[in-house]
Order: sequence, then C-alpha cells, then structure tokens
Amino acid sequence: MSSINKVVVLGMGVLGSQIAFQSAFKGKEVTSYDISDEAVAAGRERFEVLAKRYAADLPGVGDPQAALTAITATSDLAEAVRGADLVIEAVPEKIEIKQETYRKLAEVADPGTIFATNSSTLLPSDIAPATGRADKFLALHFANEIWLRNTAEVMPGPDTDPAYLTELAEFAEEIGMVPIVLTKEKAGYVLNSLLVPFLDAAGELWAGGYADVETIDKTWRLATGAPVGPFQIYDVVGLTTAYNIASTNPDPGHQAFAAKIKADFIDQGKLGIATGEGFYKYG
Amino acid sequence: MSSINKVVVLGMGVLGSQIAFQSAFKGKEVTSYDISDEAVAAGRERFEVLAKRYAADLPGVGDPQAALTAITATSDLAEAVRGADLVIEAVPEKIEIKQETYRKLAEVADPGTIFATNSSTLLPSDIAPATGRADKFLALHFANEIWLRNTAEVMPGPDTDPAYLTELAEFAEEIGMVPIVLTKEKAGYVLNSLLVPFLDAAGELWAGGYADVETIDKTWRLATGAPVGPFQIYDVVGLTTAYNIASTNPDPGHQAFAAKIKADFIDQGKLGIATGEGFYKYG
Repeated sequence: MSSINKVVVLGMGVLGSQIAFQSAFKGKEVTSYDISDEAVAAGRERFEVLAKRYAADLPGVGDPQAALTAITATSDLAEAVRGADLVIEAVPEKIEIKQETYRKLAEVADPGTIFATNSSTLLPSDIAPATGRADKFLALHFANEIWLRNTAEVMPGPDTDPAYLTELAEFAEEIGMVPIVLTKEKAGYVLNSLLVPFLDAAGELWAGGYADVETIDKTWRLATGAPVGPFQIYDVVGLTTAYNIASTNPDPGHQAFAAKIKADFIDQGKLGIATGEGFYKYG
Repeated sequence: MSSINKVVVLGMGVLGSQIAFQSAFKGKEVTSYDISDEAVAAGRERFEVLAKRYAADLPGVGDPQAALTAITATSDLAEAVRGADLVIEAVPEKIEIKQETYRKLAEVADPGTIFATNSSTLLPSDIAPATGRADKFLALHFANEIWLRNTAEVMPGPDTDPAYLTELAEFAEEIGMVPIVLTKEKAGYVLNSLLVPFLDAAGELWAGGYADVETIDKTWRLATGAPVGPFQIYDVVGLTTAYNIASTNPDPGHQAFAAKIKADFIDQGKLGIATGEGFYKYG
C-alpha cells in the first residue's frame, strides 16, 4: 500500500477534474486547485457532470455523489497543498505555464510532498529543474475518460528516486488504475510510442491511395485478432487530434494525411465518434 | 465468380505447397511445379504433411485426402502450364531467380494465362518486365499456414489491368481466403506496412530499456482491446524473422533491438512459439 492519502490536483480542466474525481471516488482525501474562482467554479461543474457519468457508466459501483461532496476546491495554492502527500499537476500543456506553476508550488509545498505531472508531451527532465525536488518528481499520465480507460503510465525522470516510482504505481492501483511502469523517460510513454507509428502507417496507406479504410481495418483485425483497426481507433481518438499530430511532422506522407483528413472530415465537422461521424458513421 | 479453374503453382516450398494444397482442397484443378524431380518429391512430402495438418486443424471440413490425390506435380514447366488460367509463382525470394523463372514461363505459357507472384519483399514493378505480360501480372500474397491465417493480399503493378485485380480477388475468395485488395503497389502490402512500424516501436521500447516485455504487451492489450501485444506477435512471427528485419535497418534503435534479440534469444535457441520459448515460454 502506498503512503499517499492526501492528494492535490492542480488544474480543474478535462483531465484534472477526472483525476481528482477518480481519486476521491476511490477514497483519497482530495483538494482541487485552479488559478481563479471562475476556473474553480467551472471545475465544480465538471465534477457534477462526472458524478452523472460515473453513475451511468459504472452502475452499482461506489458512490459518485459522496465523491462529489468530499472534494475540496480552492484557488489558494498554499492552502491547497498544505499537508499533501502527492500533488498531481494537470495544467495546460505549455512549458512556460508548467514551469511557472512548479516554481510557485515549490515555494509553498511541504518538503516531503511528491510532485507528479500528467503531461502527455513534455518529459520529466523538461520540467524537473523548476520543481526544486527532481528526486521526488515524476510523470503520472492518465488517459481521457479515466474511469473507463484505466491505465496510468508512471515514468521517472533521470533524477527521480526509484522509490517514488513504486509508490506512485501503488497509488495508481489504489485509485483503480492499471499502472504501466516505465523505467526511463520516453516521449510518448509506452502507449503513444506504439500507437503513433501504427496510426501513422495506416494514415499513409490511406492518404497515399494504396488501400481504403475498410480494407486496412479489416486486415489488422483478421491478422491480429484485434477488435478494432487503426481507423476505428482514429475515430475514438478524434480526427482533430489525428490532424494535430500528423500536421506537425514534416514527412510528406504525414503532410498528405493531415491535408486529407482536414479536407475530407474536419472541414465538414466529422471529427470521429464524438460527432457521430468520422471514418465511419455511428448511430 | 472468377473464370479461374486450372491453377499452376511454381515452387513446392513452404508457401508454394500450401497454396497448391489449399487451391486443390477448395476444388481447383492444380498442378505444382518445381525445378527438379528431387524438389518435386520433397514437395509431395510437404503435401502429405499438409493433409494431416488440415485433418487435425479443420476437423470435419472438406476432404484433405482427396486434395492430396488430386494435385498433379511435375518438373516439366511447359507441361505444367499448358491450358492454365492462373500461374502463381512462389519460388525463392531472389530477384534473379524470379526473373529467370518468368522468362522461361513467358516462353511456354498460353498468352491468356494470368501470372501472380507471392513475393513478400519484391514489388510487381520489379518483376513485370520479365513476364512479357505486365497487364496480366500482379501480386497475390499469402501468409504462412494459409488454412489458418486466411488473408490473401491482391496488389497490382503500375501496368496491371484492373480487371485482373477483381478476378484474383474472386479467385482468392473461392479458395477460402479473405482478399485484401490494394489499389497501388506498396512494399509490405497492407499488413506488413502496419505491422513492421508497430513491432519496430515495441522493439525499441524494450531494447532501449524503457519498459519490459510484459508491460509493453499489457499496455497494448488494455488500451486497444487486442488479444495479443507486440511481443506475443513476435513469438508467432519467429525471432529469426524479427532479427532479419531489424538488422537490415541502419537506425541505431533497430540495430540495438537486433543485437539484443540475437544475444538474449536466438543464440540460445529461443526462436518463439515454434521452439517452445521466445519472449514468453509455451507449454
């Protein structure tokens, strides 16, 4: 069992609110922080929505209403982090915002508090200098819809004390996650390191005119026994995310794919399952 | 329905014997050819083994014994191909051998006969000039253990008449395959174009020391619902094949992976499921 009981989540956006809610739902003492009273109020509305989603998606499991009332939320950072065992940072994915957040955090947090970032794209070593405690700092990375996609990637930076890797893996299990432990930092963690080249390859086959979406998905399903092919995964991930990833890669195959999903889908409001249509139509 | 009845398979090796047997098993008139009487005799032994495998793996389906007796085998190319609707070439994967085979074939085959190559690594455009009939030449690519992994990739060269793409897709269905139709030639077809970058990425995560085999496989299974992760696929494909692919890529990540599978597995006779042990142990 981990020694982590009091958890503070910085940022009450999409992921931050889910991490806080899930931790409270599993019995941790949770404080959520955001930078202003308006942001805190918006975060509280997210918690209300999450309580309904949990009740609908996990019928008979736990008490979402109790989790809702148990969470403390504040825009006072010093008050939030007092006595915290763990601070999970889920602020916007910009290095300047992260660094500024950790500089302020380092001033007010107890020396023994563990810091973890939920960053998808930055490495612990990019952020560690701002934390003032590189040995107690690591990544704890959740997927969207945390209560359904319950993996948590735990990744150290070069200076992280390995004891905290074990500690956070145990904490992740305690809040209902399956921990995926990396032993060294890696952009994309494990999942995106596998998923991105796989989805890229599928995108290039389609955008290059080699085969159609249904053929490519069928091939993968038949050959590997997987329930879904790459374009079914794209529809779940969302075509805006697919576009954002592909368009930043200068390779001509990626550029062709980005241009084609923009023209054929995004410009027509077809963004994947979330909008009812992407590569496939959903009822 | 295709107009293909008489099928000639060139090469009685692992894949050639399976293609011939499967076609006969599904009622096609099949002649197998190999370059010498010794090679033909070895091919006949493969047919005997296949008849037993079919009976064991597909109990109550078809009549493997009838397929066995129905196949004609010869080392006389002109005799083999007389009146053939389709010649499927499955000779060794060396461009000189393929070209020499097609040059001889072009001299003796009827002008209307369709030629298809089972090549995994060469493109139709690499071979087409030697066929003398680029419009009637395309790729028809099977996986090993054709009766279990029943996909057949159908791929045209730049000069293939699209009518033969449709014709071969129908033929593939008639012999129990699920046709995967490409509309343009592509190294790796559909399946290996997806599988190779995916397996490469997994290999780099492991060889680079970022995460262990079980963690990487678990991540893929949990996140995508797939029954197997990349290292379970490696064990099926065989580690010798994995080594051969990785070692030809100059990228340091691939070289590290190749070196590690050689040292940790191949040099110790652990080649995957076939030897009872690879990344995992099999009972």
